[in-house]
Amino acid sequence: MALIRNIHETEMNEVQMDGVSGASMAIMVGRGDDAPNFALRSFEVVAGGHTPQHQHDYEHEVYVVSGSGQVLLDGKRHPIKGGDVIYVPANEEHQFTVDADSTESLRFLCVVPVEQNCGGLVPGS
Amino acid sequence: MALIRNIHETEMNEVQMDGVSGASMAIMVGRGDDAPNFALRSFEVVAGGHTPQHQHDYEHEVYVVSGSGQVLLDGKRHPIKGGDVIYVPANEEHQFTVDADSTESLRFLCVVPVEQNCGGLVPGS
Repeated sequence: MALIRNIHETEMNEVQMDGVSGASMAIMVGRGDDAPNFALRSFEVVAGGHTPQHQHDYEHEVYVVSGSGQVLLDGKRHPIKGGDVIYVPANEEHQFTVDADSTESLRFLCVVPVEQNCGGLVPGS
Repeated sequence: MALIRNIHETEMNEVQMDGVSGASMAIMVGRGDDAPNFALRSFEVVAGGHTPQHQHDYEHEVYVVSGSGQVLLDGKRHPIKGGDVIYVPANEEHQFTVDADSTESLRFLCVVPVEQNCGGLVPGS
């Protein structure tokens, strides 16, 4: 069903996962909305927080809404800012981090396929 | 390959398509980047402009970056603003429009599957 939802008006839930600190997430469009191919999630990482340093067999397409931080990609930490689009291919190690002295949270969107390449459902889609 | 590109620093091309006025687009991540499942495109629609009023057999997941306008969905025009996420299911008629007296362009991201349900390649992916 068609829908319109605002990321600033949608409740986010803390991400409970090993290696995660100070990150929350809301599924904006996902399996629960009958999205057939990909899910769009909204994330917030507070100052000093980070997503897990990991890799998996599906890709991310990320858009940085606001704030700043770093992304681990190709074995290096790269600064990121609002307006950046980041492509994380499958099986690429990655992590989003925010400096402890940042005055603003990092807000980003992360699109994932609904199904993994092996045929299973992508967590958080 | 992993990449980081900013939507404000990426050249956009005018959308040449029947029923389109004042719209430009850049593929931020797509088939050309070996994205296997979905493509993330950046759009700008100027005051008085619009995307085509149409439908197709694949879905859109849209994020409004800035500006304001309307989206046709469920047969009605709905106001849209920064932070809105819009899900346009497959085969749902839709159009994005911007008021002629708007002081700002509408900027949005639109994610599409790389392949149509019938197995063909999605245009602009």
